[in-house]
Amino acid sequence: MKLSARELHLNAFLMGVGHHEAAWRHPRTDPHAHDDVAHFQELARIAERGKFDSVFLADGVQVMGDVRHSIAHRFEPVTLLTALAQATERIGLIATASTGFSEPYNLARLFSSLDHISGGRAGWNIVTTAGDRSAQNFNREVNAEHAERYQRAAEFLDVVTALWDSWEDDALVVDRESGVFADDAKVHEINHKGRFFSVRGPLNAVRSPQGHPLLVQAGSSEDGKAFAATWAEAVFTAHQTYGDAAAFYADLKRRVTAQGRSADDVKVLPGIVPVLGGTEAEARALADSLDDLIIPTRAVRQLTELIGVDLTDHPLDERLPPLPPVSHVNGAKSRFELVRDLAEREGLTLRQVLRRLGGGRGHQVVVGTPEQVADHVELWFTTGAADGFNVMAPLLPSGLEDFVDHVVPLLRARGLFRAEYSGRTLREHYGLPRPVSRYAEVVPV
Amino acid sequence: MKLSARELHLNAFLMGVGHHEAAWRHPRTDPHAHDDVAHFQELARIAERGKFDSVFLADGVQVMGDVRHSIAHRFEPVTLLTALAQATERIGLIATASTGFSEPYNLARLFSSLDHISGGRAGWNIVTTAGDRSAQNFNREVNAEHAERYQRAAEFLDVVTALWDSWEDDALVVDRESGVFADDAKVHEINHKGRFFSVRGPLNAVRSPQGHPLLVQAGSSEDGKAFAATWAEAVFTAHQTYGDAAAFYADLKRRVTAQGRSADDVKVLPGIVPVLGGTEAEARALADSLDDLIIPTRAVRQLTELIGVDLTDHPLDERLPPLPPVSHVNGAKSRFELVRDLAEREGLTLRQVLRRLGGGRGHQVVVGTPEQVADHVELWFTTGAADGFNVMAPLLPSGLEDFVDHVVPLLRARGLFRAEYSGRTLREHYGLPRPVSRYAEVVPV
Repeated sequence: MKLSARELHLNAFLMGVGHHEAAWRHPRTDPHAHDDVAHFQELARIAERGKFDSVFLADGVQVMGDVRHSIAHRFEPVTLLTALAQATERIGLIATASTGFSEPYNLARLFSSLDHISGGRAGWNIVTTAGDRSAQNFNREVNAEHAERYQRAAEFLDVVTALWDSWEDDALVVDRESGVFADDAKVHEINHKGRFFSVRGPLNAVRSPQGHPLLVQAGSSEDGKAFAATWAEAVFTAHQTYGDAAAFYADLKRRVTAQGRSADDVKVLPGIVPVLGGTEAEARALADSLDDLIIPTRAVRQLTELIGVDLTDHPLDERLPPLPPVSHVNGAKSRFELVRDLAEREGLTLRQVLRRLGGGRGHQVVVGTPEQVADHVELWFTTGAADGFNVMAPLLPSGLEDFVDHVVPLLRARGLFRAEYSGRTLREHYGLPRPVSRYAEVVPV
Repeated sequence: MKLSARELHLNAFLMGVGHHEAAWRHPRTDPHAHDDVAHFQELARIAERGKFDSVFLADGVQVMGDVRHSIAHRFEPVTLLTALAQATERIGLIATASTGFSEPYNLARLFSSLDHISGGRAGWNIVTTAGDRSAQNFNREVNAEHAERYQRAAEFLDVVTALWDSWEDDALVVDRESGVFADDAKVHEINHKGRFFSVRGPLNAVRSPQGHPLLVQAGSSEDGKAFAATWAEAVFTAHQTYGDAAAFYADLKRRVTAQGRSADDVKVLPGIVPVLGGTEAEARALADSLDDLIIPTRAVRQLTELIGVDLTDHPLDERLPPLPPVSHVNGAKSRFELVRDLAEREGLTLRQVLRRLGGGRGHQVVVGTPEQVADHVELWFTTGAADGFNVMAPLLPSGLEDFVDHVVPLLRARGLFRAEYSGRTLREHYGLPRPVSRYAEVVPV
């Protein structure tokens, strides 16, 4: 099969010792690796060996889940990715950061610095952060409402991208003789005055290699999709069925073109949790061995946090109760709908829901041989459900190694995936343009 | 001479291509190195070869000085130090960060992460940030008053240190069999409610190798010294005369002991700009070649920013005008007093003041041979004016290399400075204790 015109994109979502919630209890992991920079550097090198577009770190601004039975802590992602930048040469580095609890000037600096330090490999996964528990670490009793969080995010992006543009690409002169270091006509105050922020600028950083670090987004609610259509260049999304994924894909591309952007300017990357085995039975046994390690009381608390509906007193072996309308939910709306639809479609008990979610918190778990996983990837990619995948290995590093060593070669043999990097920057890997500074003078033709 | 009981401490203050304001115009530098991570990694390796205690990066949250004639931009320091951590093994890594414009939870995470990533080598130089220009990047027209900035800083430190303590050192259990990852009785909400901040906690990071990253402070005003006496473990300070330095040293140590701390628990490190030559004449020629490259109109603007008094219209060859009482100054009060005293003591014109400040912005410039610089270090160290020095090479990397290769060996030969690291962490280099978590149960003897 010859190389398709479209190129498949693969992102390695790095999550401690694995995405399965019981990964740390499984004999194939070292649970202490969660706190070891060298472990994450090894993961990034494995993904780079596989020619992945990028690695990605989630984030939160509170202890996550039940401290007793969960891994509730994490590295701050921008600093960790800076350390990974030193251990790798080509792979992109995407960090999650919230617009809810920091200042645009500070966040613009952090990502600009990562982009400079990594030679143009930085990406920002923009989240708004649900939940009162996070807000309580930042001077508030309750978090802002969903719509307001997205309004703040939109203004936050206006400010951050203006700051990234505030030094034009050719602003530096560096003329020792005359003593002119920069052309001050090419360094701009942004003078933003909005509802949430007033920022004068310019940023105290020259424009970074990518112009803007890549903008990634993961919310799939109405507000989230509207935001993505305006701002995102890659979208991480979670679907349980091909139908849902294809519908989301078509809807998002439609919204993107309605904004006057090209459909190709946004890459849609559903999550996939590949549980791999040499045979289907081996893979199934691995999946079962992981699911058996789930602690239900802990998983219920995590589900409660995830969807914003308290299920802690619901009997494990009864079907899920009717859930409220999504409009009543102030948490992660799209994840709420996914869980509701899954439980209703298949008539699952709470315990069954917990096992279905344990592998990937709502992302698609594919249990099978490398061929079966490659088939899944090819089907979704070639028939309008995905531009690539956010690969969430259940166990790390072994699950990522298995994917790189056994699935990636199949994708290459099928002409779907690169054998070598052709670009240097994260934008080049994703085939996305480098933005021109909004302050650059347009030269008449 | 035998090893003195006290150990001299040396910090390498890294500033682009040198501390002299005209360093980038001098033929011994590469001005583009200011934007090159590899340049900073080389500087850190040179300092580590010299067995310095630490490297240090200043910071600001605005473009500094005159964009046309100054280097007005910089790397974000925590990310840059994370990259330096990967290029070094032992040397401490101190980043400046302001308490004025960020949230304690975010800053606590960044420094905790740097401490984890570097294996216990992180330090935080705490600044409150003067000037309206910075405030205008953070939703305000004017900055808070000096006293209020320090009140916020004190509460900020209460919160950050409590967050760093919120996981006790032995909180992790990691028992796969029982599924207990952490002892939740050893993970603490901090429940801070104060005038500036309300923070529930705990931090989403386990306690870092040093317990608390080293706390450094550089303000020398009344408020600054009171803050240092309570919080600082190292103090960077600027003095033009031995007398001023000795008086400051005695005063600060007195304030520290008045707080119930040991005088040894705070290291006082005056800045020194060593302009080195094989002969005194060579050193003098280097100093003149640098001072001749100062652009007076630019330097006046920087002085105006530094001391908060507008001197842009004052004739260059007239003596400085009488300056207002320090109580009227809302900028860096101690630096204002230093400039006023220098000009009055020596009857300097504005141009002369600019040349005197061009080398180190008010820090002591010592022009001479390695022996002369070593004599200066020894005198101040052995007679109660310093516990060590904040070494500010006028040109980088050459000035730091000269210091490491020619001054450090003399200090070693005189029994003043280490020939090898004895510790692993920044605290160990400075001979400072690792703090016990405030939440740790005191075991009765």
